[in-house]
Amino acid sequence: MRFTSETTSNGVSERLFTLGDLSGVLWSPADATGSRPLMLLGHGGGQHKRAAGLVDRAHRYVAACGFAVAAIDAPGHGDRPRTEQDERFIAGIRERMAAGEPVGPQVSRYNAALAARAVPEWQATLDALQELDCVGADGPVGYWGISLGSAIGVPFVAAEPRITAAVFGLAGHQTLAEAAALVTVPVEFLLQWDDELVPRDAGLALFDAFASREKTLHANPGRHLGVPAFELDSSQHFFTRHLVHGGAFTPAR
Amino acid sequence: MRFTSETTSNGVSERLFTLGDLSGVLWSPADATGSRPLMLLGHGGGQHKRAAGLVDRAHRYVAACGFAVAAIDAPGHGDRPRTEQDERFIAGIRERMAAGEPVGPQVSRYNAALAARAVPEWQATLDALQELDCVGADGPVGYWGISLGSAIGVPFVAAEPRITAAVFGLAGHQTLAEAAALVTVPVEFLLQWDDELVPRDAGLALFDAFASREKTLHANPGRHLGVPAFELDSSQHFFTRHLVHGGAFTPAR
Repeated sequence: MRFTSETTSNGVSERLFTLGDLSGVLWSPADATGSRPLMLLGHGGGQHKRAAGLVDRAHRYVAACGFAVAAIDAPGHGDRPRTEQDERFIAGIRERMAAGEPVGPQVSRYNAALAARAVPEWQATLDALQELDCVGADGPVGYWGISLGSAIGVPFVAAEPRITAAVFGLAGHQTLAEAAALVTVPVEFLLQWDDELVPRDAGLALFDAFASREKTLHANPGRHLGVPAFELDSSQHFFTRHLVHGGAFTPAR
Repeated sequence: MRFTSETTSNGVSERLFTLGDLSGVLWSPADATGSRPLMLLGHGGGQHKRAAGLVDRAHRYVAACGFAVAAIDAPGHGDRPRTEQDERFIAGIRERMAAGEPVGPQVSRYNAALAARAVPEWQATLDALQELDCVGADGPVGYWGISLGSAIGVPFVAAEPRITAAVFGLAGHQTLAEAAALVTVPVEFLLQWDDELVPRDAGLALFDAFASREKTLHANPGRHLGVPAFELDSSQHFFTRHLVHGGAFTPAR
């Protein structure tokens, strides 16, 4: 893991890094030393590791909770090149959108293809992050990611015993039910009641598929991109409960 | 409204009151003067105004938020006599339970009968509470009630423009969809995924029926009485947002 830049604002350090072909960002308290809970953020389709929503969320988790927070560009996103397969999928989705046809199934299949490449990338990133002094190898790890962030995150969390708790959502059961049945950590699941990409029943079926003893569905009216702002507060309470109160960590501030 | 007793513990005053035939309880900060947000709590079937869950909830809202909090016994519950109709319903439900038969539809019909009597009682109680110095007539008013507390609460909130925000749940659409379609205030709705009294689809249909622009469904695994403890925190955040901060609704990115 090689850090390529560092900026600090409002007491939050933001460091860009590369790891082999991967490009990522690590946020932490500016003066952070010693181990702390780690949050991994998975961005949405067409976005990237420093999308505005992710930056806001990262600052919140660092400033309010004292966590370290990391995001990486998904394959074909942000600073990473697109493969021929990426270009074919994207062209197909754009053609259907231009024709006014529904793209939910196409997005779902593309996301599943991306997930197969992204899961080992997240695992390598987590390995490298846990070697940092300001993260450490023994602390709790949370994952937040909706839409593409869930298409990648559900199989990632299913395969990764180091994850302590996860927020998922805006995804359906078709390509994810098998992985969800392997997830046993606490899950908060976001569903948009009028999602134009994910049918309501497919979202409810994915929530149903998680094996977690604690799982909580938060459904709100509105379309795919209309998750209400108060769900940011809710996720903060959720991760505080599981990464702070569930473990031995007391934030320094 | 006549106060019949007062006790204080941990800075929370608890006053029992009567209002005509009604029996109720008012919790407030021990030294409360001047107007403040008011929370009304509706208890569950077979419970009463001072059921342990309500007392815990009331202390939380008073101590953490500074609210005034009131509960009254539903018709045929707590200190109030049962009518012949109450006795017939209860006997019928007990017979079915003893025979191992499902009682959901019977409970739903009994609750609807109770609601017709309870709604004007809540309105008279709210009139009287708003005349108290420690409540006042102009402050925001929240309603929390699940199961029987929703069977009564949904038509109450539908009929009562003074209510600012409400938490409902553990109830189905069959007897409540019409009233729900008249509710426009922010709603947090609790659904138990494996509820043995309320079919999942009936709960989802009731959530769907609320006319509120802001409504959020919280579904958790487990049976009717298994609502997880963290939903107490969530309701506190919800009422703080709407009764204290005023609740401007902004979509997240």
